[in-house]
Amino acid sequence: MKVLLVFAHPDARSLNGALRDVAVAELQRLGHEVQISDLYAQGWKSAVDRADFPALAPDERLSPSTASKTAYEAGELTPDVQGEIDRMRWADVLILQFPLWWFTMPAILKGWVDRVYACGFAYGVGEHSDKRWGDRYGEGNLAGKRAMLIVTTGGWETHYGARGVNGPIDDLLFPINHGILFYPGYDVLPPFVVYQAGRLDQAEFEARAEQLRERMRTLATVTPIAYRRQNGGDYLIPSMELRPGLGAAGATGFNLHLGDEKPER
Amino acid sequence: MKVLLVFAHPDARSLNGALRDVAVAELQRLGHEVQISDLYAQGWKSAVDRADFPALAPDERLSPSTASKTAYEAGELTPDVQGEIDRMRWADVLILQFPLWWFTMPAILKGWVDRVYACGFAYGVGEHSDKRWGDRYGEGNLAGKRAMLIVTTGGWETHYGARGVNGPIDDLLFPINHGILFYPGYDVLPPFVVYQAGRLDQAEFEARAEQLRERMRTLATVTPIAYRRQNGGDYLIPSMELRPGLGAAGATGFNLHLGDEKPER
Repeated sequence: MKVLLVFAHPDARSLNGALRDVAVAELQRLGHEVQISDLYAQGWKSAVDRADFPALAPDERLSPSTASKTAYEAGELTPDVQGEIDRMRWADVLILQFPLWWFTMPAILKGWVDRVYACGFAYGVGEHSDKRWGDRYGEGNLAGKRAMLIVTTGGWETHYGARGVNGPIDDLLFPINHGILFYPGYDVLPPFVVYQAGRLDQAEFEARAEQLRERMRTLATVTPIAYRRQNGGDYLIPSMELRPGLGAAGATGFNLHLGDEKPER
Repeated sequence: MKVLLVFAHPDARSLNGALRDVAVAELQRLGHEVQISDLYAQGWKSAVDRADFPALAPDERLSPSTASKTAYEAGELTPDVQGEIDRMRWADVLILQFPLWWFTMPAILKGWVDRVYACGFAYGVGEHSDKRWGDRYGEGNLAGKRAMLIVTTGGWETHYGARGVNGPIDDLLFPINHGILFYPGYDVLPPFVVYQAGRLDQAEFEARAEQLRERMRTLATVTPIAYRRQNGGDYLIPSMELRPGLGAAGATGFNLHLGDEKPER
């Protein structure tokens, strides 16, 4: 398999750097091809701005989605963005690795999403009709590929538990897993989360490293999160609300969007 | 009152720019003082990196929280970061305004949070004991101040409804409202959200503008979201889990952290 790992920590000597090395070594040992987008090392530009769209007339208003669609269709995205899109198309598996900062990804990785997820590539794809509402949430240009998160947190596991003060980790990661990865078509694997990142001793690190190796060994086989496909019949169009009667008893919020079975493909 | 509005859209001629002008004009008409941090106009640097900590030795590992705490305590934060902290301390009300990109804030605004929320200022504050777990979630250096979001989305309101495919807007904004604003002490006001931002005609814009003016007129009086204060007795320490028996019947996930009453202060 081909694996793209997008890495978003400013220091390779961090726990994140060590975990990355563990994951990459195991993938290579298994014979997979690995490419790494090391955003800090690449000096990744985070902000969507006019420099992203050189063809935009100086006095023309910048609407990011419109400018992105025009540049994508004309093959005029900037080379850094186009390079990441090429890597995403090349890879069978996308891994996003980052420390959880303020309950989501660091700015530099958000900037990778904001800029690389071009209109026409990652959204604004497919027909909008009374039968379909675009190729998204389980369909799209990345369909057939898998994606997963590797995340570290400073806080304790209980703080991110079902009743933890930070909110449940699966809910905090939903906007990424469902909104960023499932949206353009990826099958999303359960995240690999390391808690209390600043406090691991060597034995704990080794234990977590071995769990991460196991996740790398099962990349192709682990069951994806069972998000409902948007155009599979579960949602009303165009309101895009889950049909009455669907959803486990008592389920509310994000959990409504988990189906009862593995996504078909 | 003193109001700081942090603005994160790349073009002032956007709907966001127009809404900002409406909000600022109404605040000024009411006699409030307003400062604007226009992140694109300021050329805000998004990524936390070594340049933020000039005192860090070149061969020293960069741990962002450690470096941030050291720089904050020594008064050696970079001038752009210190300037924003000064504005936050000056303001009675903080408004974050942004277009919802991939279900959260744009990278440039996340970079404002990642960099301005210094350790010792916005987190890592207060004692950790069996009675308290830091001054956070309702306590902290910003306690006594109010904060709110002004957000635009391309999608429809129903797509962000209780059963909408994107997830409920209040859940999508929880990591910001609770995790970024309530965490360092702000009382968090309900967000002002404009849906289908690309499709408003003049009459719809005027209607939304008037609603926004009303929100500006009620900044000091509207009831904050009733998040539970962490050290108020509702959470077990140090697991930081909501005590058994608390939480509305059937409530799960983020909604557990809403109390039954207005926060006391």
